[in-house]
Amino acid sequence: MVDQTAGREEFTARFFVESSYPIERVGEVIAGEQSSGTFIALPGESAELKERSRARVVSVKSLPAVTRASLHSEYLARHNPSATYYRGEVEIAFPTANIGPNLPALLTTIAGNLFEIGEVSGLRVLDVDLPATFAAGFLGPQFGIEGTRKLCGVHDRPIIGTIIKPSIGLTPEQTATVADELCAGGIEFIKDDELLIDPTYASFDARLNAVMPVLHKHADRLGRMPMYAINISGSIDEMLRRHDAVLESGGTCVMLCLNWVGHSGVEHIRKHSQLPIHGHRNGWGAFTRNPQLGFSFEVYQKIWRLAGIDHLHVNGIQSKFWEPDDSVIASALSCLTPFSGVQPILPVFSSGQWAAQAPTLFEKLQSVDLMHLAGGGIIGHPLGIGAGIQSMREGWEAATQGIPLQQYAEGRPALTAALAKFGGV
Amino acid sequence: MVDQTAGREEFTARFFVESSYPIERVGEVIAGEQSSGTFIALPGESAELKERSRARVVSVKSLPAVTRASLHSEYLARHNPSATYYRGEVEIAFPTANIGPNLPALLTTIAGNLFEIGEVSGLRVLDVDLPATFAAGFLGPQFGIEGTRKLCGVHDRPIIGTIIKPSIGLTPEQTATVADELCAGGIEFIKDDELLIDPTYASFDARLNAVMPVLHKHADRLGRMPMYAINISGSIDEMLRRHDAVLESGGTCVMLCLNWVGHSGVEHIRKHSQLPIHGHRNGWGAFTRNPQLGFSFEVYQKIWRLAGIDHLHVNGIQSKFWEPDDSVIASALSCLTPFSGVQPILPVFSSGQWAAQAPTLFEKLQSVDLMHLAGGGIIGHPLGIGAGIQSMREGWEAATQGIPLQQYAEGRPALTAALAKFGGV
Repeated sequence: MVDQTAGREEFTARFFVESSYPIERVGEVIAGEQSSGTFIALPGESAELKERSRARVVSVKSLPAVTRASLHSEYLARHNPSATYYRGEVEIAFPTANIGPNLPALLTTIAGNLFEIGEVSGLRVLDVDLPATFAAGFLGPQFGIEGTRKLCGVHDRPIIGTIIKPSIGLTPEQTATVADELCAGGIEFIKDDELLIDPTYASFDARLNAVMPVLHKHADRLGRMPMYAINISGSIDEMLRRHDAVLESGGTCVMLCLNWVGHSGVEHIRKHSQLPIHGHRNGWGAFTRNPQLGFSFEVYQKIWRLAGIDHLHVNGIQSKFWEPDDSVIASALSCLTPFSGVQPILPVFSSGQWAAQAPTLFEKLQSVDLMHLAGGGIIGHPLGIGAGIQSMREGWEAATQGIPLQQYAEGRPALTAALAKFGGV
Repeated sequence: MVDQTAGREEFTARFFVESSYPIERVGEVIAGEQSSGTFIALPGESAELKERSRARVVSVKSLPAVTRASLHSEYLARHNPSATYYRGEVEIAFPTANIGPNLPALLTTIAGNLFEIGEVSGLRVLDVDLPATFAAGFLGPQFGIEGTRKLCGVHDRPIIGTIIKPSIGLTPEQTATVADELCAGGIEFIKDDELLIDPTYASFDARLNAVMPVLHKHADRLGRMPMYAINISGSIDEMLRRHDAVLESGGTCVMLCLNWVGHSGVEHIRKHSQLPIHGHRNGWGAFTRNPQLGFSFEVYQKIWRLAGIDHLHVNGIQSKFWEPDDSVIASALSCLTPFSGVQPILPVFSSGQWAAQAPTLFEKLQSVDLMHLAGGGIIGHPLGIGAGIQSMREGWEAATQGIPLQQYAEGRPALTAALAKFGGV
């Protein structure tokens, strides 16, 4: 969005706001706090300064008020206690000149001290809308959906994968054995658990050295390389070294724990990487589970796409996690939607997944561009790992052809056994 | 803590937990999810594996139950709706061998998927307790309190500072003019606003080049170098280059937006830095404002101390932010408390501060090891910036000598004018 009046390039952010003060007023406070808002006359403070740096409230939308504050504010309790807490959505435009292509600056502007402003008893970043010229200053995904498909050798259907379990505790040799069984069954994607990085009894190097020969052995047979998202998270030097080791050994993916590597770290790996980055969002619940605080997934995935990841976890439908299915679907759709010239990334469905989620996922997404990871649904399949993987593929065949699962299962033992064991649709 | 039975080194984390399931059960779920918890028999899963990798619940403390879930969980709504939500604190011991000196691994373990577990309607990380041998694997603060004091030339009293305002929008020359006035008034510490990093109209380099000669000019006069926490946040390469530029120009501090540079990034700068790292916590509100979600400041500051920062913002008492004063004081005390052999860091008080907060701060902290930053309290002082700074020093003299401010103000025009303008004690 460009403010023609000021002749400056701007981007906008949309916030949920709750306060005992009118939302319009709080919007102005936020716009001031997050730009050149000044509390006192200073030499150099001028109309010119405001024009180049001051944020402005673009719109305010009222929502029904509530009678109880979502979050305690000592400031409100002291200055403006009330029986009414107004709610609304505020859109604020910021000059891009304040920021440049700098992720910490962008986040500090849209998600900095504003969470702590005394006037707010609720504040959530809902969305951000960037001019394509501004977004182009960030690296963005390098491989995205097509690049990942090419490396996996899987086209026109979801990439079927799993997580090596137990999450942590296996020796490198045991890890290789599990990988061998998964590849023998025809797996397309394997990932480390997010907890597994460099335990003393199964160091990163030992794990890589044990698993890669197994993958190569099966690649020769399969005509495609199973993708292994090995968790390289750690210090910058470790991550760079590990990335290079993966690349050199013929691996095709690296995994990062996004929130705890952080924006500058992930961006740095993206800059050096010659492999797709599998983004794990562990910790995300802390950022989003309170609907009146933190971040929407919409803005979260945009930021990580700017940083340059290629895959992002979105939980699974009917999972063991807290999240409603609608929210999971919305997250996946946002990963698949281009924004500001930034290419889509693969949503990764995981947790409690098996063949029977395919029809719902396809109906809601109208896409097969996703990774579908099943643990028990593959490893716990009564006819073995190969049949578990086959059942996932058959689930997606039924889904994309619009045939009910039970019907499609006829004459297909893998899907039949999955439905019998895991519970039907 | 060492589990003698298992003969393994462990660290512990303490969590607030809320659920419609009994807290003991949820503690086991968390311990499983965050270590080798397995849902299905696998080759290699063994007593030996559990012994090396499985987390264990050390203790469960019950808290009064509530009748309403703090956070929605679709999983609980489906599987265990209830009129009672149990609350408690759960302490879990994890083997350090799972992790090593790896910040993303540590955070993924204590603050990863557990926030999303379906069984919990509330989860907050309250504390972490590390063996000193384990903590020693992390870099930790390089300068800490004494190193910062030495560079500032300020001993035995708080370091008095301010933030250059307007937050953003000044040209480099205007920034230098403000710095010049502050130094002429005897300021000891100046920081950029967290929003200010590299705007197109006041690039980092231009700002550094404009401000540093001013600081040197006053250093010659004062016999001490005013510390300027210039915001170097950005990409890894930019931060390294900027750090080197600050060092080369004779600067004595760099500032990082911790949450948005991220753990691997901050750690990397620490590794290369020859200057104290001023840690800004903007965005922190999103992590902590819901008391049943996210992080306590106690654990937050420990993690950033492991990463190696030297100063950390804690808000101010009687500030414009949401936070109650007790919470601000507790935060500062935790920064000042050694843990696991990791040295203390300087708490930075900021927002709405002026001379009159000194007695309360000193009474509560029993320490002068802090940075006390005032904006309006210095720049808005009726007798000018020099008197504003003088009034802050006099406030602390009164506080440490146990003399009431009004009494100490007699014959001291700076403090007298501050009390008259800003409101008395």
